[in-house]
Amino acid sequence: MTQHRWNTIAIVGPGLIGASLGQALLRRGVVGRVVGVARRRSTLNQARQVGAITHGSTSLPRAVREAELVVVCTPVAAVAQGVQAALEHTPPQAVVTDAGSVKEPIVQAVWSACPKQATRFVPAHPLAGSHQSGPRHARADLFQDRLAILTPVRQNPAEAVEQVERLWQCVGARTVRLSAREHDRRMAWTSHLPHVVAAVLAGTVPPRWNDFTGTGYRDTTRLAAGEVELWVQILTENAPQVQRALEQFEKQLQQWLRAVRRRDARALGRLLQQAKRRRDAVGN
Amino acid sequence: MTQHRWNTIAIVGPGLIGASLGQALLRRGVVGRVVGVARRRSTLNQARQVGAITHGSTSLPRAVREAELVVVCTPVAAVAQGVQAALEHTPPQAVVTDAGSVKEPIVQAVWSACPKQATRFVPAHPLAGSHQSGPRHARADLFQDRLAILTPVRQNPAEAVEQVERLWQCVGARTVRLSAREHDRRMAWTSHLPHVVAAVLAGTVPPRWNDFTGTGYRDTTRLAAGEVELWVQILTENAPQVQRALEQFEKQLQQWLRAVRRRDARALGRLLQQAKRRRDAVGN
Repeated sequence: MTQHRWNTIAIVGPGLIGASLGQALLRRGVVGRVVGVARRRSTLNQARQVGAITHGSTSLPRAVREAELVVVCTPVAAVAQGVQAALEHTPPQAVVTDAGSVKEPIVQAVWSACPKQATRFVPAHPLAGSHQSGPRHARADLFQDRLAILTPVRQNPAEAVEQVERLWQCVGARTVRLSAREHDRRMAWTSHLPHVVAAVLAGTVPPRWNDFTGTGYRDTTRLAAGEVELWVQILTENAPQVQRALEQFEKQLQQWLRAVRRRDARALGRLLQQAKRRRDAVGN
Repeated sequence: MTQHRWNTIAIVGPGLIGASLGQALLRRGVVGRVVGVARRRSTLNQARQVGAITHGSTSLPRAVREAELVVVCTPVAAVAQGVQAALEHTPPQAVVTDAGSVKEPIVQAVWSACPKQATRFVPAHPLAGSHQSGPRHARADLFQDRLAILTPVRQNPAEAVEQVERLWQCVGARTVRLSAREHDRRMAWTSHLPHVVAAVLAGTVPPRWNDFTGTGYRDTTRLAAGEVELWVQILTENAPQVQRALEQFEKQLQQWLRAVRRRDARALGRLLQQAKRRRDAVGN
């Protein structure tokens, strides 16, 4: 018999992230049961078909009753509510975490709704994803070599935080701890700004010239194919930080516009060089 | 014995594009000899090693003397000069073409320098490429299912235009004819604008947060790793069109900024929806 690290983990919202996590955990044999929670039976069936969950339920209270760990992977606007429900219905030692791409609004909502239970909530955000969504696109290697950011609060028991770190390390991710505010600030630049920029570009290029686009256009705009509702939520929840990043982008754009208007090859060379140096430093 | 379509094709500048073309032509057995022309012996050696050329020369006049077709694949600022030299030293029936990503300035330069010979110059631009450069990155399938745009002028003999169309169709591309001006106008939107946007973004995100970037940031900024010199040339040669596209992008960006500043979820939803619809129409 294998020794599992966890007997039961509940995954609320087994979409791309949740189902990929379930798959990875089950394949590595670190958990006995993975209970999926979704509103629709069809989602649960798909998650089961791809080996992401062992059990499914449309009732969160029932599904989390025996869980040692609950991971809320719903769209970001539903995370706080999912976390609250999980805190309410889990055993008092159970740890609740999430995978929301914005952290401060979630932490605030959870603490103001249930301050007594909130100490068991360890917020997290794995930096992984795709422009595709749903359990059918789940991949057990989605988190391999990715970064999982935890934004614990001082009230979290050390052990609870470590358990969530182990969860993400188990599926191949590196973990790092940040404050929720600092997380949201960095994500505004490295994730939300690129999304907006890709969408602005996709919205600018006239569709009648689609035939004349190449891989460059496709790469640069790929994010724009992301789920609309999810991104409305992210951008409104993190609006102050996104605004700052966007304003900085606009300043930089003005420099480019000036250089192009003046046909200033030297200025363009400097701007292109700086961009290339920075991009090269990130790797492919 | 195989029947070749061409006995000798000269490729001036066997970099990524030129070497990929040579590879594709030789592997398909449609040409007997491919003569590479480069300033440096090391480039010719690399091109030979990857099977992109059968012969190499650092002298353009000598290399093109027996060519039926010359393809000038140098960086865009050197194309007009390469074309002129090729027109001067090829036999009077030989056709000269290019692969430059900007067309009008090249056509004008060639016609004003050698109006008598210019009828044999059929300008072209295969929509293929990579952020990597040089013959070592050559791929025989680089043009497969891509679009090759020809911008012939009315003085070009029909047969010469058809020969260049056959060239690109031979290596898997579809071909289309446009005026040089129309080509440059469309490329400003579908190629040059995405390049600038990727570079603006790469220049905006603070390097200290590189660890917090994911595949989204990488896709969106990939173009920024392109060759600086090449892009200075493209952006200055096509500056009037690029300026127009960039100004339109800036207008669109202002709409986004307004929506973010007002935390206007509805406006954001509309903008995201429009971007998604357009991006989805392009395919992956």
